[in-house]
Amino acid sequence: MISKSPYGDIYRYELDDAQERKKIDEFADGRRVVIVQGLGFVGSAMVAALAQARDTAGNLRYNVIGVDLPDEKNYWKIARINQGKPPVRSFDKRMDEAYARSHQDRNVLATYSPYAYVQADVVVVDIHLDIIKKELGNPHEYEFSYDAFKTSLEAVACRVREGTLVVVETTVPPGTTEKVVYPVFCDEFSRRGLDISKLYLAHSGERVMPGTNYIDSIVNFYRVYSGINAASKQRVREFFESFVNTNDFPLRQMHSPTASEMVKVLENSYRALNIAFIQEWTEFAEEADVNLFEVIETIRMRPTHCNIMWPGFGVGGYCLTKDALLADWSYRNLFGRKDHLGMSLGAVGINDLMPAFTFELLSRELLDDLEGKHVTILGVSYLSDVADTRCSPTYVFYDMCVQRKAKIVVHDPLVKYWPEKGLDVETELKNLKKKEHEIAVFAVKHKEYAALGADEILKVLPGVKIIIDANNVLTDETAQALAEKAIIMAGVGKGHWNL
Amino acid sequence: MISKSPYGDIYRYELDDAQERKKIDEFADGRRVVIVQGLGFVGSAMVAALAQARDTAGNLRYNVIGVDLPDEKNYWKIARINQGKPPVRSFDKRMDEAYARSHQDRNVLATYSPYAYVQADVVVVDIHLDIIKKELGNPHEYEFSYDAFKTSLEAVACRVREGTLVVVETTVPPGTTEKVVYPVFCDEFSRRGLDISKLYLAHSGERVMPGTNYIDSIVNFYRVYSGINAASKQRVREFFESFVNTNDFPLRQMHSPTASEMVKVLENSYRALNIAFIQEWTEFAEEADVNLFEVIETIRMRPTHCNIMWPGFGVGGYCLTKDALLADWSYRNLFGRKDHLGMSLGAVGINDLMPAFTFELLSRELLDDLEGKHVTILGVSYLSDVADTRCSPTYVFYDMCVQRKAKIVVHDPLVKYWPEKGLDVETELKNLKKKEHEIAVFAVKHKEYAALGADEILKVLPGVKIIIDANNVLTDETAQALAEKAIIMAGVGKGHWNL
Repeated sequence: MISKSPYGDIYRYELDDAQERKKIDEFADGRRVVIVQGLGFVGSAMVAALAQARDTAGNLRYNVIGVDLPDEKNYWKIARINQGKPPVRSFDKRMDEAYARSHQDRNVLATYSPYAYVQADVVVVDIHLDIIKKELGNPHEYEFSYDAFKTSLEAVACRVREGTLVVVETTVPPGTTEKVVYPVFCDEFSRRGLDISKLYLAHSGERVMPGTNYIDSIVNFYRVYSGINAASKQRVREFFESFVNTNDFPLRQMHSPTASEMVKVLENSYRALNIAFIQEWTEFAEEADVNLFEVIETIRMRPTHCNIMWPGFGVGGYCLTKDALLADWSYRNLFGRKDHLGMSLGAVGINDLMPAFTFELLSRELLDDLEGKHVTILGVSYLSDVADTRCSPTYVFYDMCVQRKAKIVVHDPLVKYWPEKGLDVETELKNLKKKEHEIAVFAVKHKEYAALGADEILKVLPGVKIIIDANNVLTDETAQALAEKAIIMAGVGKGHWNL
Repeated sequence: MISKSPYGDIYRYELDDAQERKKIDEFADGRRVVIVQGLGFVGSAMVAALAQARDTAGNLRYNVIGVDLPDEKNYWKIARINQGKPPVRSFDKRMDEAYARSHQDRNVLATYSPYAYVQADVVVVDIHLDIIKKELGNPHEYEFSYDAFKTSLEAVACRVREGTLVVVETTVPPGTTEKVVYPVFCDEFSRRGLDISKLYLAHSGERVMPGTNYIDSIVNFYRVYSGINAASKQRVREFFESFVNTNDFPLRQMHSPTASEMVKVLENSYRALNIAFIQEWTEFAEEADVNLFEVIETIRMRPTHCNIMWPGFGVGGYCLTKDALLADWSYRNLFGRKDHLGMSLGAVGINDLMPAFTFELLSRELLDDLEGKHVTILGVSYLSDVADTRCSPTYVFYDMCVQRKAKIVVHDPLVKYWPEKGLDVETELKNLKKKEHEIAVFAVKHKEYAALGADEILKVLPGVKIIIDANNVLTDETAQALAEKAIIMAGVGKGHWNL
């Protein structure tokens, strides 16, 4: 079998559960064992944070076992960890160091064998629970199922001992820990003749950001949690105190797991809502020839208004594009409401289609059709200075250009390969010189783009006639200088610019 | 003729323009003259702020003339000012002092004669521009007209000299200064043979809050402004520098008056939107038995989320209930859009009907009908510790109780008379003892209510069986203590409470 990482490494492997069991047994040395289920963005950071935790005497606290599936899509993560490398590449050197060190210390193991759960003192659940939009812009229609999530939990529940602490970190519909996870364990414990009162079950939302502070987003960050009963709350609190800097970032206990779950989806719905709101006013500002950045800078001077968002190109990633849907699903299916969380859902729909506004700006500047025109898109990831392309708004914009038969070049300094599109991406600005250019769209505020002056832009994009700044990438001075060189300039939220 | 103030003073008067003109002429003593048009909440604070402004040598800068209409509804303001008293009562002693002092200094005059504008160096426009909802909860249908606004401006435009600075402070649909006010002056100046390039026209939104910092909300606050051209921008900047503490609160110049106008309606739409959003989640939290205050307190720990709002009873006042409608009117009528500012308007509609949720909580606790039941409503103003009842949410709740034929007692420590309902209000808690009580609703977090313990509440409201805390007025301890005394307790956003 073969598994290929997004970085190009190829791993060949055969399934051999007996050998995995042997490795797991040999790994045991009396230290407490924490299993991290799911080795994606969150799980692989948790492995590193737990592996480097030390007690007051300076001894390592835990043996950490990372578990993921032995399929083509996931096996490479297991292989990389067992080579002493983090599955997810980031700009956080401390993450690489943590994996390298724990490889030497031999307190991290990765495996696909669920036998690992037998050894667990603590299981941290970091598997995905996805909700699928049937169509972008129509968030009221979605598909959701607990099936895969429950299967993964059953693999844990049928193996763990009495006394194990299970911590769900997955972002879930509020009510999931109490109404879905707990019943899975009740059924399995009953079947196995175990005492369910000796299961400790908790929820604690993660706030992992895979950037330069990747590991800090676990170790040095506020942690919100709750448990299904007083004993679970106490156990999970002690667990976090063992590896989170709770002196500087005090723990925050909620009344119930449902409240803890709500914190996450509410805060992300809040952010998504406020982005959608500004999109509404961006369109107003465009009509009224107002620079909305100037207006918002002014409004943000008031502390009561400092969270008001900026105009932009779109919203990506897994959280802001989906968490309101998880909440809505819970509202209707776990708590029996017939209506929807209308504002929260509506915002996600507006954000889905935000890149259409950039496309509209572009269309306004074009006298004839886009067919056959050369369009250069600068930026593929959903966030500046991050390589993550999940749910990137560039996806929507790219499709619009394809539909109008434009000839497209895509550049991103950080993204070599765009998995959602199956496309290779140009990462070198200097290589763009050899291509043809008519229209250029700055979609992401990567440092490398923001540093470009007017002359450099014209050197890199020879022949360009129209430039759209979709994400406040260029300074007013740069835009002005380009306009003076007869480039047609437009910008999302930029209004006047006096061009 | 008779004019009665909301404080019960009665003023008898005859119209006599010749006498007013004489007063105005006699008032002139060479000092620069500022006219404030409109003596409501904003205008009367502006009069005080301008009258106490002094130059670096310590001399008074301005003679200030306040102008309002000589009708029953407004004349009392003129009369009060000429007695050395502020038209609007507030908890800000400095306001009373400012009026008393300028009465001694003889640098304030109030009049109904538009002849005053002849003398103006500066005219500050503080008249109302109202937009009327046809129905609460349906903000897409509204009535709006510039007629009265334009008539007032014409009274200025047909009298002012060349060189006058006109500053519009009224909250207006973005575009009003350039597209409506300026043409009025163009027409009149052209008719009078004056040079319109010698009119200085500007917009600057006010942020007046009639509370304990009433006068500070002008003198010590950030001021945003713009003018129709460079000369107007300069004049208005110099004007504000003459009476605002611009060292600590630097002025903020916008590119255009339309941008300055947008700041105000956008920031209030932002706030209204975020209140409506939390109402949506308050209903969710109620179903999920989650204390939303606990959830929001947690979310607010993150600086990027510190503006998230609290659950509450409703939204009142003139700004948050209407500014999104003014923006929508502009969007459609001044800038030709066919659609609406859907999120911003929708939020106003949700907020209009927020008090219905408190009514729903009450209905859930009642086994039989509300007819004939004694309901005591505690709080009539729209804000805690303020006497202002404009657009108060208690209005909506009161009507619901009336419709269900409840027997209602209304109390507010600060409101003796409720003008929108034409009702006298009980201001003494101790007088409530003599009334009958079954249901009590805490609607406003006045200090006097928040200070009440469980025993005091039972003493003041003998016989009460159900208490609804609609606005986080009571502490959890008080609620718990009441519940232990067999009072049925419920609260907006309070979820569990373990009662």
